[in-house]
Amino acid sequence: MNRKLILVTNDDGIFAPGLKALVESVSEFGDVLVVAPDSPQSGMGHAITIQQPLRLNKVDVFPGIESYECSGTPADCVKLAKNILVKNKSIDLCVSGVNHGSNASVNILYSGTLSAAMEASIENIPSIGFSLLDYSFQANFEPAKKYIKSISKYVLDGNLKECNLLNVNIPKLEASEIKGIKICRQSSGVWVEEFQEGIDPRNVKYYWLTGKFVANEDSHDTDLWALANGYVSVVPSGHDLSVHKAILPNIFIQNI
Amino acid sequence: MNRKLILVTNDDGIFAPGLKALVESVSEFGDVLVVAPDSPQSGMGHAITIQQPLRLNKVDVFPGIESYECSGTPADCVKLAKNILVKNKSIDLCVSGVNHGSNASVNILYSGTLSAAMEASIENIPSIGFSLLDYSFQANFEPAKKYIKSISKYVLDGNLKECNLLNVNIPKLEASEIKGIKICRQSSGVWVEEFQEGIDPRNVKYYWLTGKFVANEDSHDTDLWALANGYVSVVPSGHDLSVHKAILPNIFIQNI
Repeated sequence: MNRKLILVTNDDGIFAPGLKALVESVSEFGDVLVVAPDSPQSGMGHAITIQQPLRLNKVDVFPGIESYECSGTPADCVKLAKNILVKNKSIDLCVSGVNHGSNASVNILYSGTLSAAMEASIENIPSIGFSLLDYSFQANFEPAKKYIKSISKYVLDGNLKECNLLNVNIPKLEASEIKGIKICRQSSGVWVEEFQEGIDPRNVKYYWLTGKFVANEDSHDTDLWALANGYVSVVPSGHDLSVHKAILPNIFIQNI
Repeated sequence: MNRKLILVTNDDGIFAPGLKALVESVSEFGDVLVVAPDSPQSGMGHAITIQQPLRLNKVDVFPGIESYECSGTPADCVKLAKNILVKNKSIDLCVSGVNHGSNASVNILYSGTLSAAMEASIENIPSIGFSLLDYSFQANFEPAKKYIKSISKYVLDGNLKECNLLNVNIPKLEASEIKGIKICRQSSGVWVEEFQEGIDPRNVKYYWLTGKFVANEDSHDTDLWALANGYVSVVPSGHDLSVHKAILPNIFIQNI
């Protein structure tokens, strides 16, 4: 039987501690290929690079593991991995992260980490985006590894049904404090009060994105609830944005 | 009664003909505020600018209409409009586009045009992304205007139920050839054969994104079918990526 091929990527860049933690977590399950951005790409969403060429450089970051840095976005990394590096072989799993900070709720849309996993899922590769709720460069990824391993193994074993993308967020807790895993839905939420205003050294006004995230609901079946209550949240996710219940044929036609 | 406030944005930049067509289409319905990127932002998806400050410059592009160019992404434009320019007033409608080229199917995810509209919808503003299936800078937007007006009016009048975002694509046809509007769902599809490889003047290899879009299905209820058959496609869209039928509580917990 062929060994499994696992693509590892992220949005914090090739030298992020979270990427190292992810490589260490999944390398026991198969051959690992790392393709990660050469610079931080947080907040890049599902951006792809159209207007300029991309570069791909082989790097020696993880001993014994084929690794590349890419000049593009997280979604670009996945496209390059599939089309240039792997070509006709199939990728059995794509894992992205471990992101420094939450990608729960609507943050899935802004997240380069999740967009990389989503890009792979569009290409029919079972995919997982992992995030740890700790922005620190010194974040402790050890408690997360147990969950990364078990969820990755579960997906690699072909257990995903009805979807091929999981958005996994892990609370900032000691291993003994994490209560387990909750399968949940994406919570409704929004960012508010979003800009710090200032004057630059040339006396020109600028606006810098900041703000705080506010949950719009307090339901127990959401990712935000799971995380606030000590669980790892797992949201089965997709890329069909249609609101099916709103599709009422011929609703406008008579109005034209 | 207060006049309606309509935010107009896009991803092709403040000087794109599609933006002009959109401003011309909706200005009869209320006060228009234009906030658009100062450079093309196609393919930016839902990217937001975190690592650097943003600039906002008042410009005189559309006679009598308050207009700004922004150094950020389409989603940044919406955030700045809401938080800095409009502040406590409410925006009654956000329209984004008219994009040069299709944003049907999975292209909604890569599209800066649709991400701007989606950002507004997250902030509870009824929103529409418009795209014309014509990449040419000389595209004829006249046949599209009738549909832009009627759909914008429909949304402004508070008729949207169950969702507050529409992904509207308009075929490249003469007015007499467009059969009407179809309310449909996002088609499944994927981009294939995606990179042109080359050697740059410094003898370094590069990869440039290209490829072709392939539909994965041939169902008559999709946006791709509607467009191929002469209809304007309208997909009621959202930002909940959860795959609800895959949410089976406790499925993993025993595996840890």
